[in-house]
Amino acid sequence: MLERLQQARRDARERSDLTRLLGHCRKLLTERGESNSVAIATQAIEHYRRLSGEALREFFDLLAVEFDPDPGEVLRLAESYAATRSPENLVRLSRAAEPPRQELLRRLNRAPEGTGTIVAMRAQLLQRLRSDHRLAAVDADFEHLLGSWFNPGFLKLVQVDWTSPAVLLEKIIQHEAVHEIDGWADLRRRMEPDRRCFAFFHPVLPNEPLIFVEVALLPSMPDAIAPLLDRNHPAQADPSRFKVAAFYSISNCQPGLRGVNLGNFLIKRVAERLHEEFPRLKTFCTLSPVPSFADWLARVEGLESPRLKPAVLADLERALQGLRQRHGGDLAKLLSPAAAATQRGEAPGEAVPAGVEADELALRRLCAFHLIHTQPGEATGSDPVARFHLNNGARLERVNTRADLSRKGLRQSHGLMVNYLYDLEEIESNHERFVHGEVNASRAVRSLV
Amino acid sequence: MLERLQQARRDARERSDLTRLLGHCRKLLTERGESNSVAIATQAIEHYRRLSGEALREFFDLLAVEFDPDPGEVLRLAESYAATRSPENLVRLSRAAEPPRQELLRRLNRAPEGTGTIVAMRAQLLQRLRSDHRLAAVDADFEHLLGSWFNPGFLKLVQVDWTSPAVLLEKIIQHEAVHEIDGWADLRRRMEPDRRCFAFFHPVLPNEPLIFVEVALLPSMPDAIAPLLDRNHPAQADPSRFKVAAFYSISNCQPGLRGVNLGNFLIKRVAERLHEEFPRLKTFCTLSPVPSFADWLARVEGLESPRLKPAVLADLERALQGLRQRHGGDLAKLLSPAAAATQRGEAPGEAVPAGVEADELALRRLCAFHLIHTQPGEATGSDPVARFHLNNGARLERVNTRADLSRKGLRQSHGLMVNYLYDLEEIESNHERFVHGEVNASRAVRSLV
Amino acid sequence: MLERLQQARRDARERSDLTRLLGHCRKLLTERGESNSVAIATQAIEHYRRLSGEALREFFDLLAVEFDPDPGEVLRLAESYAATRSPENLVRLSRAAEPPRQELLRRLNRAPEGTGTIVAMRAQLLQRLRSDHRLAAVDADFEHLLGSWFNPGFLKLVQVDWTSPAVLLEKIIQHEAVHEIDGWADLRRRMEPDRRCFAFFHPVLPNEPLIFVEVALLPSMPDAIAPLLDRNHPAQADPSRFKVAAFYSISNCQPGLRGVNLGNFLIKRVAERLHEEFPRLKTFCTLSPVPSFADWLARVEGLESPRLKPAVLADLERALQGLRQRHGGDLAKLLSPAAAATQRGEAPGEAVPAGVEADELALRRLCAFHLIHTQPGEATGSDPVARFHLNNGARLERVNTRADLSRKGLRQSHGLMVNYLYDLEEIESNHERFVHGEVNASRAVRSLV
Amino acid sequence: MLERLQQARRDARERSDLTRLLGHCRKLLTERGESNSVAIATQAIEHYRRLSGEALREFFDLLAVEFDPDPGEVLRLAESYAATRSPENLVRLSRAAEPPRQELLRRLNRAPEGTGTIVAMRAQLLQRLRSDHRLAAVDADFEHLLGSWFNPGFLKLVQVDWTSPAVLLEKIIQHEAVHEIDGWADLRRRMEPDRRCFAFFHPVLPNEPLIFVEVALLPSMPDAIAPLLDRNHPAQADPSRFKVAAFYSISNCQPGLRGVNLGNFLIKRVAERLHEEFPRLKTFCTLSPVPSFADWLARVEGLESPRLKPAVLADLERALQGLRQRHGGDLAKLLSPAAAATQRGEAPGEAVPAGVEADELALRRLCAFHLIHTQPGEATGSDPVARFHLNNGARLERVNTRADLSRKGLRQSHGLMVNYLYDLEEIESNHERFVHGEVNASRAVRSLV
Repeated sequence: MLERLQQARRDARERSDLTRLLGHCRKLLTERGESNSVAIATQAIEHYRRLSGEALREFFDLLAVEFDPDPGEVLRLAESYAATRSPENLVRLSRAAEPPRQELLRRLNRAPEGTGTIVAMRAQLLQRLRSDHRLAAVDADFEHLLGSWFNPGFLKLVQVDWTSPAVLLEKIIQHEAVHEIDGWADLRRRMEPDRRCFAFFHPVLPNEPLIFVEVALLPSMPDAIAPLLDRNHPAQADPSRFKVAAFYSISNCQPGLRGVNLGNFLIKRVAERLHEEFPRLKTFCTLSPVPSFADWLARVEGLESPRLKPAVLADLERALQGLRQRHGGDLAKLLSPAAAATQRGEAPGEAVPAGVEADELALRRLCAFHLIHTQPGEATGSDPVARFHLNNGARLERVNTRADLSRKGLRQSHGLMVNYLYDLEEIESNHERFVHGEVNASRAVRSLV
Repeated sequence: MLERLQQARRDARERSDLTRLLGHCRKLLTERGESNSVAIATQAIEHYRRLSGEALREFFDLLAVEFDPDPGEVLRLAESYAATRSPENLVRLSRAAEPPRQELLRRLNRAPEGTGTIVAMRAQLLQRLRSDHRLAAVDADFEHLLGSWFNPGFLKLVQVDWTSPAVLLEKIIQHEAVHEIDGWADLRRRMEPDRRCFAFFHPVLPNEPLIFVEVALLPSMPDAIAPLLDRNHPAQADPSRFKVAAFYSISNCQPGLRGVNLGNFLIKRVAERLHEEFPRLKTFCTLSPVPSFADWLARVEGLESPRLKPAVLADLERALQGLRQRHGGDLAKLLSPAAAATQRGEAPGEAVPAGVEADELALRRLCAFHLIHTQPGEATGSDPVARFHLNNGARLERVNTRADLSRKGLRQSHGLMVNYLYDLEEIESNHERFVHGEVNASRAVRSLV
Repeated sequence: MLERLQQARRDARERSDLTRLLGHCRKLLTERGESNSVAIATQAIEHYRRLSGEALREFFDLLAVEFDPDPGEVLRLAESYAATRSPENLVRLSRAAEPPRQELLRRLNRAPEGTGTIVAMRAQLLQRLRSDHRLAAVDADFEHLLGSWFNPGFLKLVQVDWTSPAVLLEKIIQHEAVHEIDGWADLRRRMEPDRRCFAFFHPVLPNEPLIFVEVALLPSMPDAIAPLLDRNHPAQADPSRFKVAAFYSISNCQPGLRGVNLGNFLIKRVAERLHEEFPRLKTFCTLSPVPSFADWLARVEGLESPRLKPAVLADLERALQGLRQRHGGDLAKLLSPAAAATQRGEAPGEAVPAGVEADELALRRLCAFHLIHTQPGEATGSDPVARFHLNNGARLERVNTRADLSRKGLRQSHGLMVNYLYDLEEIESNHERFVHGEVNASRAVRSLV
Repeated sequence: MLERLQQARRDARERSDLTRLLGHCRKLLTERGESNSVAIATQAIEHYRRLSGEALREFFDLLAVEFDPDPGEVLRLAESYAATRSPENLVRLSRAAEPPRQELLRRLNRAPEGTGTIVAMRAQLLQRLRSDHRLAAVDADFEHLLGSWFNPGFLKLVQVDWTSPAVLLEKIIQHEAVHEIDGWADLRRRMEPDRRCFAFFHPVLPNEPLIFVEVALLPSMPDAIAPLLDRNHPAQADPSRFKVAAFYSISNCQPGLRGVNLGNFLIKRVAERLHEEFPRLKTFCTLSPVPSFADWLARVEGLESPRLKPAVLADLERALQGLRQRHGGDLAKLLSPAAAATQRGEAPGEAVPAGVEADELALRRLCAFHLIHTQPGEATGSDPVARFHLNNGARLERVNTRADLSRKGLRQSHGLMVNYLYDLEEIESNHERFVHGEVNASRAVRSLV
C-alpha cells in the first residue's frame, strides 16, 4: 500500500520532469530560447536526469515524433532544387531536410555537462532501440552528431601507466572487455616497461576514457596470450629487444558511442607513436580472439566457397568430419585434455592424447577457412573481430592453436587465437579488397586451405 | 623575363598541388580512403596550404560544383518520405540531402592540424564569397560544421592576465578591434586587479584565442571610455568597491568563424564567473560605441516612427534642424570645440562655447531615437553594436555624450557612447521583444524621445 | 670455488670504487674541485652507490676520521675569540669548528641526484651507528644538514587521494606503519570523501613522500579504530556533518630523515588546511596506540609518583593487584574474552564474562597513570607516541578501552587507544609544561587517577 | 608640525614592532617556541616587514650582539675536544661554535614566506654592512645558510622564452644588467629561435628568477655585440647552422644572494643542456665586457710583469706611450672617430683617420696584458668579469676591438670585448692554475704580448 503510494508519487514527479523537459526542448528551438540557451539547456538536462522507466520511454518517443522534418516542405524544396540548382535552393533544402532534433542536441550540448549527458542519453536510447524500431531515425541523428563531435581530430591520445591517477586505472580495470584484469596486481604487469596502454579522451570529458588499447612490446610475434598476461613473467626493460608491437586487447568504454569508429584511429595513432619512440619496431600486429569460431564449427553443415577448388574443399570437409568423429560429434570438450595438461604445467615429454595433433591441424585449417570468408557487412555470420581488423586494412597473418586456454577461450574458439598484421603500406588496398569481398591472408594462412 | 619564368614555375607547381588535393579529397570520400583517412587528409592539407591565387579559386569552385547533393536522388527520397514517414526513409533522405562537402570536411578534420586549417580555409572562402555568389552554399556548409564544432559546450573560458604567456598577450594586442592597445604598457593597465580579460579557446587550438572580452570592475556605471583606458589611472585593488562590471571591448580573433555566435555566450559566461568571484557585483553592463550614428545623422531626411506621437517627432525634428543650423549643415566638426577643450584639460569654469549644451542634448535625443529603432535583421541601416547586444537580450540603458573623444569616436558618433545592461532575469523577454521589432530601453532613454 | 672467485672480483671492484670515491671527496674540498664540483660529485655518487659490506663500512669510518675539524686550530681560534670578540675572529672560529664533512655533503648535493643519495646514505649510516658509536659525530652532521634542507618552509603539502598517481598510492600502502593497509580496496576506503591523507614532499624528490598522515572527518571524537578502517562502512559525503578531524595514523617514509622533526609540522599544517576547507571543524585530535602499555603493565612493580597523594596511589595499586589476581599473574590474554566476543559480533546483551568491567576500568586507570608520567627525554621508559604528541603541545584527552582489537593492539596495549587533543591556543603552554615534566591531561583523564 | 607628529607616530609604531619582533626571535630559540615555531615565525616576519630606518638598524645591531656564541663555553669545549677527540666532544663543540643566529634563521624560514623574507633581509643587511663593519659576522651567517639552501642541487633550470608569463619577462627586462633591454620589442629578439635565455629558480620562490643568462646560437664566435642585439637582424631558424653558443649576458636578480655562487653553475648547466639539444654545438664561449680596462689604461704608470721578458714589456710600454701621444694624454675620446664612423654606417672604403689602426692594435695588446695579469682574490685591481670566468675555469680566448660601440662600452673599455672559452676538458686545470696566479690564454692572445 505504502509502496504503491510512493510509486505514484515518483511517477507524478517524473511526469512533471518530463513535461518541463519537453517545454525546455521546445523553447530551445525557438528564437526566445536562443538568447538564453545555456541556462535553458542546463535545466533541461537536470530534468532529463531524473527520468526513468515510462517517462524516459515517452521522452524518446516524442523525440521521434515531434522533431522530424516536415515532409511537405522538404518535398517542395527538393523540387525547387531539382528545378534550379542554385546555392539558395540548396541551402534551404539542406536545412529543411536535417531533422530539428540535431539542432536540439547541439543546443543541449551548450550546457556545462551537455556532452556527457548526450553520450549517456544515446546509451539509454540504444537499449530502447532494441525493442522499438521507430527510434531508428532518432538514433541516426545521435550517431551522426556524435561522429562529428568525436572526430579523431578532436581526441587526445593519452598513455596510461603506473603514474596515472588511480581513478583512471580503476576504469581500465572495469572496462577491459577482452582479457579480464583481476585486480591491481594484475593491472600492474600490464603497465610495466614492456607493456603499453593508450586511451583516447575527448577534451570535455577529461575523466572518461573513450576506448583503450593494450600493447605488448616483444622480440617476436606472440602465439599465445597467457605469457603476455602472466604477472610473474619478468618485464623486459631493454628497448633494443622490442621488435614487435602486439595489440592484445582493445576495449570501448562508452556504449553511447556505438557506431563511432574510434578503434581504427586508435590503433593507427598508437602504431605511429610507438614507431616514433622505438624506431626499430617494424611489426605491428594483434593477438586476437576468434569469438565466432566454436559456434560456427558446431553448426556448419557443408563447406562451400566459390574461391576454393573442389579438391581443397573436399579435403577440408574430411578434416571436419575427422574432428567430429574423434569427439563423438560433441566438440564442446575438444582440446580439453591437452589444455588441461598445459595448465597443469605437465612436462612436454608427457604422452599427448592420441589425435590431439590431428585435431590441432584440423582446427587451424578450419579456422583459416572460416576467417578467409569474413564478409564486410554487419548482418553476416562472420567473425566480428576479424571484420573489425580486416576492415581497418589489416592482413590475416597467422592462426595459433592452444593460444588461449582460459575457459572463455576454450569455449569460444577451442583455444585458437589469430594475429592480424597492420602494414601501413598495405592498409588502403587491403581495406578496398575487403570491401569487395576479398580477405588478404598471408601465404602461411593460405597454405592451410 | 626571369620573373615570368618563375611565375610559370610557381603556377605549374600550384596546378600540381591542386590536382593532388582534389585526388585526395575524392579518395577521402570513397571506401578505400576511409581506412586510411588520417594519412590522406594530412597530405590533402599540405597541398591545400601551398595553393594561392588562381589555383585556390579553382579549388573553391570545384568544392561548389562537385560536392553538391544529387538533385534527382534527393527528390526521389523526398517523395518516398512524403509518402511513407518511416525512419528508414527519413535516414536515407537526410543523408542524401546533406552535401557531401560536409563529410569531406569532417574527414579533413581528422588530420593533426585539420581544425585550424579548416578555419583558415573558411577565412579565405569568405574573401572569395564577396565577389562570387556561387560559393554561398559551400560557405553555408562551413558555417554549419564550424557552428557545431565550436559549440560553446566545447569551449574553454580562460582568464588572460599578466601571468599569461607573452605569445598570447601579443595576440590580444593584435586583435583588439574596439579600443586599440598601444603596446605593452597600455596592455598592462588592462591586466591590473580592477580589470579583467577573458577569452574562449577551443581545446585543439590551444594557442589561438577565438574571441575575448575586456571588463572594468567599477564603483558605478561608466559614462566615458578614457578613464578606463588611461594607463596612469591608479588601479582599485579593493574588491569591496566593485559594484559594476563594465564590458568595454569585445573582439573576434578568427575571421573564419564568422556567423558562429561566440560573443553572446562569452558575455554571459564571464558575467557568471565574475558573479561567483565577487558576489556583490550586481550590475553587468557595457560601454559601447555607436559606430553608425554620425553617418545616420548626416543622411537622415525626416524622422518617422510608428511608435512615437507626432508631437514628439516634431520636437525631435526641430532638434535635428537646430543642430544643422548651428553647424551650417556641416556636422563633421560638431562637438569639436568642447571635445578639444576637454582634451586640453581646461578647467570646467571656462566659458563653454555657445550652443554646446543644446548640441549635446540634441545629440543624445537623436541617438536614442536612432537606437530605439534598431532592427533585428542583417540588411537594415541599424547600428551593428546595438543589434548585437539587443539580440543578446540586453537593454538600452543610457546614452552618454563626450564619452569617446578619440578621433574615431568623434568621427563615428560625435563622441557618444552607450551602456547596454545585461539583466539575467530579462534576457529572454528582451530578446523575444527585439526579435519582434521592439527595443527595450530604460526610462531615462525613453524620456529622451 | 667459483663463488669465492666471484666474491673476490666483487671485492676488488668495490675497493676500486671506494678508492675513487675517496679521491673525488677529497678533490671536492680542494680549490681545483670547486670549479668542476657538479661533475665530480656526480661521479662520486656513482661510485658510492656500488659500495656494500666492508667497503661501505670503510667509507663511513673514513668520513669519521678524515673529515673532522682540526682540534689545534679550533682551540687557537677559540682563544682568539675569547680574547677579542671581533666579527673576524668569530667568522674564522665558526668556519674552523664546522666539520669539513658538512661542506663535503653540500658539494655532493650539487649532483643531479645528490639529495636523494644523501638521504639514502644517512639511512645506511644509521644502521652502522647501532654497532659503531664512533660514527655519532658523522651522523650529527647528516642530521644537522638534513634538518636545514628539509626545513618545513621548503616542504610541499600534498593531498593524496584517488586521483593521485598509482605509484604514489603504492608507496602509501607500503609505508603505512600504524594500521596496515591490506591492498587497494582497503586503501580506497581511506580515500573516500570523509577521509583525508596528506603528505609532505621535498621539491627535488617529487616521487618520494617523506611522511604522511591519515585523517578521518567525523561527527564526534572516535573511541575505536575498527569503524574508521572498515571498508564496508559507508562514507559520509555531507561536509556539514564533519565536526572532528581525527588523525588516526602518521607514518614516516624515509628512515634517512630520523631526528628531522616533520610530524609536528605536518599535523599542524594539515589542521590549518582542514580548518580552511571546513570552517566548522573545531576539534583536532588523534586516535593513537599506546605501544608501551602492555609491557609496562607486565613489569611495573610498585606505583610511585611525587604528584599523586598516597591514597590515590594505594587505590591504583589495588586495581593493579586485582587485575593480576584475576588473571593469575598472566596478563597476556587479558581482555581476550571480551575482545573475541566483540569480534564475533555478539549482541551487547550477551553475558559479559565476570570481571571484564572491573578489568576495563583498571586498565583505563593504569594507562592514564602510565601516560601522565610520560617524560620528555629520549632515554626513559615512557610511551613514544605519547611523548611525540605531548611534545608537540597536545593534551592527553581520553583513554578508550576495546579500541583496537587487532592482534597487535591487544598485544601491545590490551586493546586501549588514546585521544590526544590539539588545541592551537594551548600548544605552546602545553609543550612548555611538558618540557618541565608536567603532562596536561583533561579532567576526565585526571579523574581516573 | 603635523609632519613631525606623524613621524613620531610612525617611530612609536616601529619601536613596538621591533620589540615584538625581538620577543618572537628570542621565543623561537626557546623550548616553548619550538612547539609552535611556524606561528611565531610568521608573526616575527610580519613585524620585521614593517621596520625601516632606525628600528631596522637596531634590529641588525641586536642580531650582531645578542645571537653570538658564548666565547667561554666555546673555549671550554675546544679544550675538551683538543684533549679528547671523541664524537661527543666534537658534537658539543660544533653546536656551541655555530652562532645561534643560524638556528634563528632556520626557524624563521619555517614561516610560509620565510625564505623570500630572509633573502630580502640579507639585501638590507648588505646595505648596512657598507657602513657598519660590526655586522660582518651576521652577514657571514646569512651567506653560509643561503649558500646551503640555494645549493645548485636544489635549483631548477627554466628556459625563458616567448611562451613565458609576461610577469617573468618583465623581470628579465628589469634585471638585465649587462646590455640593457629597451622594451618588449627588444626583448622579443632575444627570444627568437637562435637566442636562448635560461634562469635558475628556487622551488619556494617560483616567481623570482635568481640569475639568468642569455645565449646566442651562431655559426662562429662573435666579435661584436651590436649584431647580436639588433632587433632587425633576421633570426636563424635552421639549427644545423648553430656551431657556437655565445653567452653574451649574465645577470643576478637577487642582491640578497651576493656571495652565493650561481653563475658558475648556471653557465655549465646551460652548456650541458644546449649540448643535449644540439649535439653539433662544440664551442661554448662568452662575449664579455672588460669594465676595468679604460680606468686601468688611464692610470697605469709603468708596465711590470714577472712573466714577460723586458723586451716585450718595453715594446708594450712604447705602444702605451704612442697611444697617449696620439691623443694628447687624454684617452677619453679614443676610438671615437672610428666608432662614430661605424655607427654612421659609413662605407669601409672611407678614409680611416690616421692612427686608428695603430690605436686598435695597441688597445688589443694592452688589454691582453691587463687581463693576463688578472688576480684570483677579491681585493685587487683586476677585471671582475675576467675574474669570474677565469675562476670558473674558462680560457681567455680572444680580444676584439670595436666590439661594443655603445656609450658605456666606449667609456669603460674603448669598445673592446673579450671571448672567454669554456672547454669542459680544461675547466679543472684552468681553474687550478688561475688560483695559483696563472691565466690560461689562447695562442692568439699570448701572441699579442
